[in-house]
Amino acid sequence: MSVTAAKGFQAAGIAAGIKENGNPDLALVVNTGPRRAAAGVFTSNRVKAAPVLWSEQVLKSGELTAVVLNSGGANACTGPKGFQDTHATAEKVAEVLEIGAGEVAVASTGLIGVLLPMDKLLPGVEAAAASLNEHGGEKAAIAIKTTDTVHKTSVVTKDGWTVGGMAKGAGMLAPGLATMLVVLTTDADLPSDVLDKALRAATRTTFDRVDSDGCMSTNDTVLLLASGASEVAPDHEEFAEAVRQVCDDLGQQLIRDAEGASKDIKVEVVGAASEDDAVEVGRSIARNNLLKCAIHGEDPNWGRVLSAIGTTKAAFEPDRLNVAINGVWVCKNGGVGEDRDKVDMRYREVHIVADLAAGSETATIWTNDLTADYVHENSAYSS
Amino acid sequence: MSVTAAKGFQAAGIAAGIKENGNPDLALVVNTGPRRAAAGVFTSNRVKAAPVLWSEQVLKSGELTAVVLNSGGANACTGPKGFQDTHATAEKVAEVLEIGAGEVAVASTGLIGVLLPMDKLLPGVEAAAASLNEHGGEKAAIAIKTTDTVHKTSVVTKDGWTVGGMAKGAGMLAPGLATMLVVLTTDADLPSDVLDKALRAATRTTFDRVDSDGCMSTNDTVLLLASGASEVAPDHEEFAEAVRQVCDDLGQQLIRDAEGASKDIKVEVVGAASEDDAVEVGRSIARNNLLKCAIHGEDPNWGRVLSAIGTTKAAFEPDRLNVAINGVWVCKNGGVGEDRDKVDMRYREVHIVADLAAGSETATIWTNDLTADYVHENSAYSS
Repeated sequence: MSVTAAKGFQAAGIAAGIKENGNPDLALVVNTGPRRAAAGVFTSNRVKAAPVLWSEQVLKSGELTAVVLNSGGANACTGPKGFQDTHATAEKVAEVLEIGAGEVAVASTGLIGVLLPMDKLLPGVEAAAASLNEHGGEKAAIAIKTTDTVHKTSVVTKDGWTVGGMAKGAGMLAPGLATMLVVLTTDADLPSDVLDKALRAATRTTFDRVDSDGCMSTNDTVLLLASGASEVAPDHEEFAEAVRQVCDDLGQQLIRDAEGASKDIKVEVVGAASEDDAVEVGRSIARNNLLKCAIHGEDPNWGRVLSAIGTTKAAFEPDRLNVAINGVWVCKNGGVGEDRDKVDMRYREVHIVADLAAGSETATIWTNDLTADYVHENSAYSS
Repeated sequence: MSVTAAKGFQAAGIAAGIKENGNPDLALVVNTGPRRAAAGVFTSNRVKAAPVLWSEQVLKSGELTAVVLNSGGANACTGPKGFQDTHATAEKVAEVLEIGAGEVAVASTGLIGVLLPMDKLLPGVEAAAASLNEHGGEKAAIAIKTTDTVHKTSVVTKDGWTVGGMAKGAGMLAPGLATMLVVLTTDADLPSDVLDKALRAATRTTFDRVDSDGCMSTNDTVLLLASGASEVAPDHEEFAEAVRQVCDDLGQQLIRDAEGASKDIKVEVVGAASEDDAVEVGRSIARNNLLKCAIHGEDPNWGRVLSAIGTTKAAFEPDRLNVAINGVWVCKNGGVGEDRDKVDMRYREVHIVADLAAGSETATIWTNDLTADYVHENSAYSS
């Protein structure tokens, strides 16, 4: 299903030989119209990969006809040659699809600082175009995997229209705007400004609140393409909610597949004076290596939650803080609460509630535990 | 040597039974004068342990006669009872030394959120006082260890006067102000305002630039006590430099003993527009889990350095950044530089230079690699 669940889209995923192991590494998504509206959000990392710089530029028109994505190389920190390669990739897609290069977004993922093997990528574009079809969404989702162990897709079908999408991401996962490659498609008949508003609202509370390892990527890209093929123009709020649901589902899939993780941790901050405070505190907790290790050891070490809260600028009084882990209020009023031995941590999902007792705003950040497997996977990635 | 290297100090370290394994866990340092000048810096974590709140208060006088330190429990997040326990500890020290409780600083380290066993601690104070002597510095340094594998001491002797000290710290090591327990002593004859200025200047560029795991403690305390027993009043700048040397040496010892670490990483930021920029970039690099894993795997993955720089607000242009790892400029002008295979990473110390090409300011942050041993040690700490 994936990006071809909505009408008006074709996709393909092939092995172009960019990855040395011969796995699929090139995906193509094409909007066959009648509409070509599009919106996108990109990493806020100031070191942006060439494809991000390119795609930000072409999206200014509010229209896209195709997205070409490769795994096996991020094309980040590759200088002018890297940008030329991105440009050449878009030109190649334009040539085979008989469109303009300015209608083609490019996304890349993989190791930073290595030039892409264009002698393999450009013929790969031709091969991908030749295999484009209306059921190619699954193959496209598979072709963008890097260290992902599973491919990620999601679809929400409403009354006559659909939002679908695919995502990749397993490491270097932290809010940038988004922190991964995502392509969403819809056959709803809506203009780009409506797409843009829905996409920004959705990513703000979904992908932006996934923080697996605190490391912001240079390549994060989330695109939303609308074909209008359903001939339905849904209510904007209903549409925004459907986009949010797909983003939320894909974000959850990213967390569940995070590198080396054995626990998915839901950090829910409540009682905050503002949503910004809640997000800041949630991120601080989610990025605390000591806490992430403790959760890995099934240790409800709430002191590490408090020490993480204490590093923030959020409004709170230390002696009013409360913390629950899996439903047990182990910290009350900044001190010892219920018996920590009551906390059952045997299951994969761990739920931490941090109550700042300073207001009524909330935010939820998702993260993972820190494991020896994460260390192993990331100490051997490029070598 | 340690805190008794300088004249006018006695110390002791004993096993009071606070630690269940019977290891030494209580240290006492006493200034026998004639002067009792003192200064201190404390964690900037807003969740402060009871002993930090107490010691900040008593130090307002600029004088201290004794410091009592315990391992085996942080007395943090322990509410009003925790503060009463700190107060009772100071009162007990005051009673046995026949001084006022307001002359006694208290420092604690260990697990957060657990009350101290006062039935063992208070008799321990009597035992420690009974064993005070002018060669007790080593035993005091041993008694403040938690997960430290070695005790840390340092001494600088100048013309007729001495600065010595002890430190503990192996995890939850990140700049707060300091990030550990440290007691420095000197027999220099100087007033508290001179001590304070020298100590703040020293910690700012030493302990504050040690960032092992990004986790700021609730208990960080650095104290400097001056006895005046040398009857020498050294030049203030010379004194400040001696304090800086002792702090720098102890900070290096902390990094070398960081939990689970196999590499000590010197992150040197050069070419910054301001010192603040250099520190921000250095910290961002030092806290990047992916880079820390790569260094563990002896992988000169400079792309992770650039992605960390990109998350900061520092002044720089992405296409002017340069990165050297162990002397090899693997990244030049934001792209591929010298051959990464030239980088020799077999040794424990790794030197990363990040050149922002935006000015002439510099800063050095010390950190460690991220290892499976760190995960193991911190997933089993309190359970």
